[in-house]
Amino acid sequence: MFRSLLTAAAVAALMAGTAHAQDVKTAEGLRDKALRDYLAWDITEDLTTNIGPRLVGSPAMERAKDWGAAKFKALGFTNIKVEEFAKPSWTRGEESAELVGPYPMKLAIVGLGRTLPTPAGGIEADVALFKTYADMIAAPDGALKGKIVVITQPMVRAQDGAGYGVAGISRRSGPVEAAKRGAAALLIRSISTSDSTVPHTGVTANGEGVVTIPAAALGVPEAEQLERLAAKGPLRIKLKLASTFDPKDVAWNISGEIKGSEKPDEVIVIGGHLDSWDVGTGALDDATGVAITTAAAKLIGDLPKHPKRTIRVVMFGSEESGGSAEAYLDAHKAEVPKIVLAGESDSGADRIYALKLPAGGGAHPLAGTAAGVLAPLKIYLDREPSTHGGADIAGLESAGVPSISLEQDASRYFDYHHTMDDTLNKVDPVQLAQNVAAWASFIYLVADSDIDFRALKAAVPAAASH
Amino acid sequence: MFRSLLTAAAVAALMAGTAHAQDVKTAEGLRDKALRDYLAWDITEDLTTNIGPRLVGSPAMERAKDWGAAKFKALGFTNIKVEEFAKPSWTRGEESAELVGPYPMKLAIVGLGRTLPTPAGGIEADVALFKTYADMIAAPDGALKGKIVVITQPMVRAQDGAGYGVAGISRRSGPVEAAKRGAAALLIRSISTSDSTVPHTGVTANGEGVVTIPAAALGVPEAEQLERLAAKGPLRIKLKLASTFDPKDVAWNISGEIKGSEKPDEVIVIGGHLDSWDVGTGALDDATGVAITTAAAKLIGDLPKHPKRTIRVVMFGSEESGGSAEAYLDAHKAEVPKIVLAGESDSGADRIYALKLPAGGGAHPLAGTAAGVLAPLKIYLDREPSTHGGADIAGLESAGVPSISLEQDASRYFDYHHTMDDTLNKVDPVQLAQNVAAWASFIYLVADSDIDFRALKAAVPAAASH
Repeated sequence: MFRSLLTAAAVAALMAGTAHAQDVKTAEGLRDKALRDYLAWDITEDLTTNIGPRLVGSPAMERAKDWGAAKFKALGFTNIKVEEFAKPSWTRGEESAELVGPYPMKLAIVGLGRTLPTPAGGIEADVALFKTYADMIAAPDGALKGKIVVITQPMVRAQDGAGYGVAGISRRSGPVEAAKRGAAALLIRSISTSDSTVPHTGVTANGEGVVTIPAAALGVPEAEQLERLAAKGPLRIKLKLASTFDPKDVAWNISGEIKGSEKPDEVIVIGGHLDSWDVGTGALDDATGVAITTAAAKLIGDLPKHPKRTIRVVMFGSEESGGSAEAYLDAHKAEVPKIVLAGESDSGADRIYALKLPAGGGAHPLAGTAAGVLAPLKIYLDREPSTHGGADIAGLESAGVPSISLEQDASRYFDYHHTMDDTLNKVDPVQLAQNVAAWASFIYLVADSDIDFRALKAAVPAAASH
Repeated sequence: MFRSLLTAAAVAALMAGTAHAQDVKTAEGLRDKALRDYLAWDITEDLTTNIGPRLVGSPAMERAKDWGAAKFKALGFTNIKVEEFAKPSWTRGEESAELVGPYPMKLAIVGLGRTLPTPAGGIEADVALFKTYADMIAAPDGALKGKIVVITQPMVRAQDGAGYGVAGISRRSGPVEAAKRGAAALLIRSISTSDSTVPHTGVTANGEGVVTIPAAALGVPEAEQLERLAAKGPLRIKLKLASTFDPKDVAWNISGEIKGSEKPDEVIVIGGHLDSWDVGTGALDDATGVAITTAAAKLIGDLPKHPKRTIRVVMFGSEESGGSAEAYLDAHKAEVPKIVLAGESDSGADRIYALKLPAGGGAHPLAGTAAGVLAPLKIYLDREPSTHGGADIAGLESAGVPSISLEQDASRYFDYHHTMDDTLNKVDPVQLAQNVAAWASFIYLVADSDIDFRALKAAVPAAASH
């Protein structure tokens, strides 16, 4: 009998004079439906099981491309596009490493993504071990010459994943910097928050004009074992890495739309990336991002009336090796002024705990409305603006497209990231559904509004911006 | 100023008229000293770092044997013995598996311990997948013929590790039973409580008169992936396993003693096993068992006066592949009547939660004394008697030697058991020290007593025994 009572969030929205009460009700309905909806799980299960690992350039990635287009079609998306772009590919071969002295022991390793191979017979050399990347950089002249350099710097666990950037420099820049210093090869402690032997890959600098050396990541216990052994005496390691490179390969960005009912040329771009590393099945990275954004848009598309603006879901085709962001911008330059917002889901499938709006967005009444709709999901509106919404939308961001971040709890993400353990059994269906609930309800609110984040940003006084 | 007050446990012991108050005080002192003692950690670190993995028959096992004798000597143990026995050895070679269809994907596997190798080119075959061992046994005639059989039965997590016996039948008997039914090879879901891709090895039946097939264990996500894929269509797998066998090899049981001050010919045998699988560094299985019992005995040996009876620590030399228990009994048959008690630590390094005494032991006043000394460690006296104190003391038990069990929390033990992840970083030093505290204080009480567990067992009415 109290059906006509408005929720607190609806009242707040009305008072703010922005979102219609009906919009809030619809957003709340999407949110609550999403919490019990299994579409994101089914998409994740389908992609990881029926396609499996899908490295750029692999036959699996080609199957994934067809899968993506077919998925959009099956779910009722329209204006489905498969946009091809040039992307040199790298394919892993056999890899192994062993401690040779003080005693023989196999070491769990994985070659860094796009690493150079070793000669076929491998590289055997004495070890120069450094406990931090900074220690390696500060090493005296000649200390690395001809050595297999080992960096054992650990990664710090943090809810927002902030430890990744700090520790990741060993992987991103380590091989080039070690090469400059004459090293023969580099082994890094995996960029990992786990205590597992399963090593973490991830892209390293390579390509035209880059002078580098073969490089791989060690399992965490192996790195710690080497650190202990190095304190007792000299070490010697043998490393074999094989790989091939195809400079003429291609990749694809695949998209589908929920067409806007009133302003279809105004577009919100959301998505995740379809490619994965070749180890594991890319469940958390990033089948779930594809699944979350696709399921959220599908729920919106199933409404009796589409929101005003178009929602486009993009399955980006080369995040891990880089390239989708630039390719997407290249293909959509003319359209950039009409892309009103971009967002990406690419930090696993654990719960969202915060929303970051574009700079200036917090001042708009829609922010309060969104905060009210998201609060029951235990998501707060962060006072900090979104600065980097994701690697695949970085191109759009660089061209001025406003972005949001729905911040996922990354506390456990880097236990599995880029490993054979990035598999479906690490996905929690309840947290996955919470992600969909947040994306569906928030994106709906923006899509059915006239909010202009560019104008809001322009209105931010310089001193108040971050 | 209350220093002369007795503790509750001491009062209980006095009232029971058994242990001298001085004994209780000494046991409590050992217990409290052990909680802050790092010897067990140092032994574990030393063995896992400086020796590493130590499979029976490996050069590392020979180094471990010397390490064990040297460790006893360095710690002041006496009557140090290295007892050699015949033990055929098995050495792992290169191993790999891949899904061939419906699409190619590498599978994380490890050959079961002592498995047959495949032909050098591997075995490629269609898959017959069963969700339980019972389903395989119940399969119709011919269903396994020429197939690679996959069993995906999971293991249940339990504090007392009870899930291991149930699930472990796939590993212990699976290859022989699948061979009887004409299978070409067997892959089992790892006998594991984790969700990790790291596969678990462990011994399977093989040797003279055993008809079996090549067999390996899959990582957990891989087993689940195959289960999902098998529900959708046929699977094909290629498996390669290499290994060599040396029927003439040897192993060693190594022991050292804290000589009894009054009845040195009455012996308490405690220990763990020195050998490990070749994957990981055998930290939880069983460097910590060796370390806990050695450190406990060392603490007792450091007392101003040794207890009445002799405490002998045995580092058993072939638990994983079997043989140390029989060898130890063979070498000590004449001494069996004077071995008053045996105990083994071989379930990792997590906290002890219960003490099981030999049948009839609970009726003796010493049980109450021990319960009082152990209670602050959060250890209760189990009403059930110890029936199987450990694989390496099973030979002594079969000859009538009473045994105890200090039950370790095995909730997380089977996450790492027999894997590359059985490494030092899984050992919690605080829980490790709690183990030493329990062993040192309890073994001291028995060693300085006249308790005769054989007589107590003989006094148990048949109807009351278990």
